[in-house]
Amino acid sequence: MKIIEVDLGDRKYPIYIGESVLSDKKLLNKNITSSQVLIITNENVAPLYLKHIEKNLDNIKHDVLILPDGESTKSLENLNLIITCLIEKKYNRTCTLIALGGGVIGDLTGFAAACYQRGVKFIQIPTTLLAQVDSSVGGKTAVNHPLGKNMIGAFYQPCAVLSDTNVLSTLPEREFSAGLAEVIKYGLIRDRKFYEWLEKNIELVMSRDSRALTYTIERSCTNKAEVVAEDEKESGIRATLNLGHTFGHSIETALSYKGWLHGEAVGCGMLMAADLSMRLDLIDQGRVDRVKALLERAKLPIKIPRGIILKDILENMKVDKKSRNGILYLILLNDIGKATITADYTQRALTETINHFLE
Amino acid sequence: MKIIEVDLGDRKYPIYIGESVLSDKKLLNKNITSSQVLIITNENVAPLYLKHIEKNLDNIKHDVLILPDGESTKSLENLNLIITCLIEKKYNRTCTLIALGGGVIGDLTGFAAACYQRGVKFIQIPTTLLAQVDSSVGGKTAVNHPLGKNMIGAFYQPCAVLSDTNVLSTLPEREFSAGLAEVIKYGLIRDRKFYEWLEKNIELVMSRDSRALTYTIERSCTNKAEVVAEDEKESGIRATLNLGHTFGHSIETALSYKGWLHGEAVGCGMLMAADLSMRLDLIDQGRVDRVKALLERAKLPIKIPRGIILKDILENMKVDKKSRNGILYLILLNDIGKATITADYTQRALTETINHFLE
Repeated sequence: MKIIEVDLGDRKYPIYIGESVLSDKKLLNKNITSSQVLIITNENVAPLYLKHIEKNLDNIKHDVLILPDGESTKSLENLNLIITCLIEKKYNRTCTLIALGGGVIGDLTGFAAACYQRGVKFIQIPTTLLAQVDSSVGGKTAVNHPLGKNMIGAFYQPCAVLSDTNVLSTLPEREFSAGLAEVIKYGLIRDRKFYEWLEKNIELVMSRDSRALTYTIERSCTNKAEVVAEDEKESGIRATLNLGHTFGHSIETALSYKGWLHGEAVGCGMLMAADLSMRLDLIDQGRVDRVKALLERAKLPIKIPRGIILKDILENMKVDKKSRNGILYLILLNDIGKATITADYTQRALTETINHFLE
Repeated sequence: MKIIEVDLGDRKYPIYIGESVLSDKKLLNKNITSSQVLIITNENVAPLYLKHIEKNLDNIKHDVLILPDGESTKSLENLNLIITCLIEKKYNRTCTLIALGGGVIGDLTGFAAACYQRGVKFIQIPTTLLAQVDSSVGGKTAVNHPLGKNMIGAFYQPCAVLSDTNVLSTLPEREFSAGLAEVIKYGLIRDRKFYEWLEKNIELVMSRDSRALTYTIERSCTNKAEVVAEDEKESGIRATLNLGHTFGHSIETALSYKGWLHGEAVGCGMLMAADLSMRLDLIDQGRVDRVKALLERAKLPIKIPRGIILKDILENMKVDKKSRNGILYLILLNDIGKATITADYTQRALTETINHFLE
């Protein structure tokens, strides 16, 4: 088992990564200090891993809330549902919430933990690759608003993250690929060696080889933890973790969060960012082709879905959270392994990039 | 003008107190660093002070949201309304929200600022005595849930508080008295000298004498700022600021937040806390009588409203935020000017106290 510490002073916490993390009864109980525990999960994950977790909860009174699967679960309505459940069952400020699921469950549960009585503890047990390498680490929690993704949320850190590589064996192929988009992202923005390792080993990772998987999650979490420790509230360098996300969110919004997985949108968005970087002479076409090739091998989409038009993407980009005083900053690439935050792009190059990716 | 600094490291901020704070155009503009400003106020305050604020906003593009007056405005629905307004008008992460109103507007606006895009700036312009001496200072933000007050919220600090004593001239008498409950609280929990000053000068304060008022607000904010600086997230000493609040919230919940003002409930709750302290031999009857006398002179209610029964109060107390691992801690008095946080009270004494205050 690997342990990565996210170094955030009095809010620091460990990420446990390994083949049998969830079978380690002591580990789970060590991280729960309260007598009231609410497990929040979804209808897909519950039949697979809920009993396993419950069995390991030594005599701790706990309740379970099972929500529907899918991005639309990340709503203010479901936040209210969780809060209602907590109040009805008389949960107090010392309770602990456990998020058992992917990014949707983690983001929603984390935000509920941030808000309930102005903040209670929570533990992340991510069950998707995307959640293990990205959303469970770093404390970004949120729900969606019909007009924009992650518009209502908080920076709120978990007290522990338990990532078991075994749970990825049941993950559908498309979801696994979606997680790889964020993995590839870490290589692209700050870890050229890891990127090159992925170029050599992507098929091995996709075969879910346990050693390759542990290394993949460990490198991803280490990269993320380093960035988050340096800039928790995203006033600077943390924004580079959003490579591909501004384009990706625009696509997701245009699709009303339906049809594509978040990671798929991010994958396509990263290629768009690489393409725009090329049009601005920041990188050469060869590097764009390398990105495209790796995304294709990871079985990620590389075109915007049919039916979406230029105006949709441009309009949706305007409310992006990286916009400062009306100027939209984008994360672009100076090289494989080197990201830059910039507003120095022409509207013409941006439009050309978007048009290039429209079906 | 008096300036009190709330010392919270990188989240520190000033409280400006004085007779003409809102006429000081420079002061307001100095504290706004963004080009997008949303003023949130209510239908009672807007006709009185909105134009005044707008006039002082030097060429800054701004919008206004006017909400209904009253505690029921502090809802998740209105949070959603604010967020929708912000997204529709394409407000970005660098925007500033201004809370112009009492505690309800301040708590709701503060929570919206805490949540929107995971946190934007906000300025408090409190227009009630209660907001000036209590709710605008210290970063407690929240909305209510039908099953409990302030159940959904965040610790989120404003970037400045502007308290103009002139605005209190339009405050109805009952609301002024409600504010005095929190003022008296500071004396009771940690400032015997201030309490004795109030015993001498309460009628002068109630006549809204400007000097007496400035001193009252200054002492209250200084006391609160000191406690908050020591314990921002209420893991210890900050809980003493809740003297009377556990009883008070129980009354408010039993009334569905209707009929009584928050400060009125706190006033009655403080007397109940004093009474319970006496039954536990922490203070003598003479001190309880002094508390009762001061509350009566401040025109605050000293009995639980008719129709509420013992069971209502006891049940509502169970979900109090000060409950830890199922044990409800109460703030009691060891003396005038000295509070204690304790779970060492008997159910019998608690029941006797509640019964003593039922009509």
